[in-house]
Amino acid sequence: MNFRSRKMVKGEDLNGAGNLFGGRALAWIDEEAAIFAHCQLKTERLVTKAMSVINFKSPARQGDIIEIGCAVVRLGNSSITIRCTMRNKTTHHEIVTVEEMVFVNLDEHGKPAPHGITQATE
Amino acid sequence: MNFRSRKMVKGEDLNGAGNLFGGRALAWIDEEAAIFAHCQLKTERLVTKAMSVINFKSPARQGDIIEIGCAVVRLGNSSITIRCTMRNKTTHHEIVTVEEMVFVNLDEHGKPAPHGITQATE
Amino acid sequence: MNFRSRKMVKGEDLNGAGNLFGGRALAWIDEEAAIFAHCQLKTERLVTKAMSVINFKSPARQGDIIEIGCAVVRLGNSSITIRCTMRNKTTHHEIVTVEEMVFVNLDEHGKPAPHGITQATE
Amino acid sequence: MNFRSRKMVKGEDLNGAGNLFGGRALAWIDEEAAIFAHCQLKTERLVTKAMSVINFKSPARQGDIIEIGCAVVRLGNSSITIRCTMRNKTTHHEIVTVEEMVFVNLDEHGKPAPHGITQATE
Amino acid sequence: MNFRSRKMVKGEDLNGAGNLFGGRALAWIDEEAAIFAHCQLKTERLVTKAMSVINFKSPARQGDIIEIGCAVVRLGNSSITIRCTMRNKTTHHEIVTVEEMVFVNLDEHGKPAPHGITQATE
Amino acid sequence: MNFRSRKMVKGEDLNGAGNLFGGRALAWIDEEAAIFAHCQLKTERLVTKAMSVINFKSPARQGDIIEIGCAVVRLGNSSITIRCTMRNKTTHHEIVTVEEMVFVNLDEHGKPAPHGITQATE
Repeated sequence: MNFRSRKMVKGEDLNGAGNLFGGRALAWIDEEAAIFAHCQLKTERLVTKAMSVINFKSPARQGDIIEIGCAVVRLGNSSITIRCTMRNKTTHHEIVTVEEMVFVNLDEHGKPAPHGITQATE
Repeated sequence: MNFRSRKMVKGEDLNGAGNLFGGRALAWIDEEAAIFAHCQLKTERLVTKAMSVINFKSPARQGDIIEIGCAVVRLGNSSITIRCTMRNKTTHHEIVTVEEMVFVNLDEHGKPAPHGITQATE
Repeated sequence: MNFRSRKMVKGEDLNGAGNLFGGRALAWIDEEAAIFAHCQLKTERLVTKAMSVINFKSPARQGDIIEIGCAVVRLGNSSITIRCTMRNKTTHHEIVTVEEMVFVNLDEHGKPAPHGITQATE
Repeated sequence: MNFRSRKMVKGEDLNGAGNLFGGRALAWIDEEAAIFAHCQLKTERLVTKAMSVINFKSPARQGDIIEIGCAVVRLGNSSITIRCTMRNKTTHHEIVTVEEMVFVNLDEHGKPAPHGITQATE
Repeated sequence: MNFRSRKMVKGEDLNGAGNLFGGRALAWIDEEAAIFAHCQLKTERLVTKAMSVINFKSPARQGDIIEIGCAVVRLGNSSITIRCTMRNKTTHHEIVTVEEMVFVNLDEHGKPAPHGITQATE
Repeated sequence: MNFRSRKMVKGEDLNGAGNLFGGRALAWIDEEAAIFAHCQLKTERLVTKAMSVINFKSPARQGDIIEIGCAVVRLGNSSITIRCTMRNKTTHHEIVTVEEMVFVNLDEHGKPAPHGITQATE
């Protein structure tokens, strides 16, 4: 798994208890995985279809540097399934893991369309 | 299922394609479910532990009014499992559904602790 | 008065003194009342026209769960007047109250138009 | 009335109809008036107590430059009352006006305390 | 130099160390200078072209009131160069200074075009 | 130069003209460079001291995927100087370049302190 995007946990990212807000973590993961899927499929019209088995393993605190990694689980005909991990950049402790995120390639009418990619890159 | 919190999709909520950003939808759902769990368990020290089977069923657009509903799936000893639906307030079309979100009650040392609730309310 | 939308006060909502920023509270109330007015009038083209007698009664702190309720004060020919309360979900202490918010229904030329609603619902 | 703070209406400021979100306008006005009150009273412990007669006079659109002006209406023993106008910087059309915003000076116990200012400055 | 726009440092503006996030400071300065350039050149189609010699002189903390001032350094044929200072409103300590920000006036094809202004105003 | 963090330009990132807001671009660059500096110096107490020669080369639009790369220019005794480029992930067109960003390592009293690093990594 290749870790790329990195964030510093700032004041605007904190929940009521002063830790990284879980919803913010999910938003960061969704954006990173969507970008990763775009890069794999070389296509513009992609939508998030489903996510499964998300585990919140440890909290992150203000000032922590985190990084997010993605890997291809499966390439379907019109879909791609991605695994994603957010971890502490310094300690490598996992913060959130997502087993499966499915993105679907759409044609110009918004219907699922073959993406023609059979091999994951990078 | 009781639908409570409502949002209007605004400029700050749009993804690169001009629809409601999936990450924003997840952040809204996570906050609503956490509040719902707090109200069920009457406790302060709750953490999101896991989510599973999230389906993105239809897009939402700028100006749409959406609403979010939660229901108790299961009450464990120290946990609560919640189902959550985000739908269009006007058409009732489902936008995102989450089958299971697990929240765990913690004691003052951050360890899982019995919450003593055996019956879901409201 | 029916309390619906709920929020948790997070890091991004705090003013310079570490309490809920009053401007954020007003933005939450304005969005909730606009949604409530849309639902009452079953119309798309609504604008906020005026607000009056806003009282900031007590502060809210990071981690507090708040809820917002609306009620119809008056139904005019092309307008609707709404009362709104934001309170602490746990203690029921009022945080902000707004006596009157006036929304006006517009026709396709942006002129006030009768909304045809004479009875408040829900 | 002295116009000082200026904003450009950006994507993050738009409501569902693509105009400046009324709640964002109120948040900008509240922050500007609070700063103005701090500068008048030369004190740290100030809270917004009340607002009255807010009129939304015309919409603002993406790209508009707006400016906000404040003036002292009344100096009480422990309070200050401020009038505030948000207008288009180019056309000078008024967007939102607030007749009265009351801020109260607090002592270290959070009780209203005399601010000792009897003359408005700047 | 004329100081106009003012901000209060809030929870959403803090970096991992709990001070004003440098990136937020730069965003505030960029917006203020762009507005100032618009007002000088009385033109709509302006783009930021370059910035140089930015110094971060002292930190700002939650609750600080800051103000931003701009001055014209140079008027080119199709450009304007601006100097900008962000300082603490109370102590006048400089927080960030920018020696030169260059904005360029564009014609309807997006090419640099003379702005016809030879004298700075206000 | 190693390109790591990636972003999708969303509705909340747009300026008044509907392009990526320059201030948002600077905030993204500042955060990425600060994280890069932290990773190079393996230290917690770092502050941005200065930036120089920032060029805005081409606009970015809603839906564009951008990536940010950093490289070490110079390692001083207590400082590190970094070069940074933001470019379009698909076309590799440069959007913003920053020639020099200087970060300084501080001791526990907030004074510049040797960081002991003499060789850039990764």
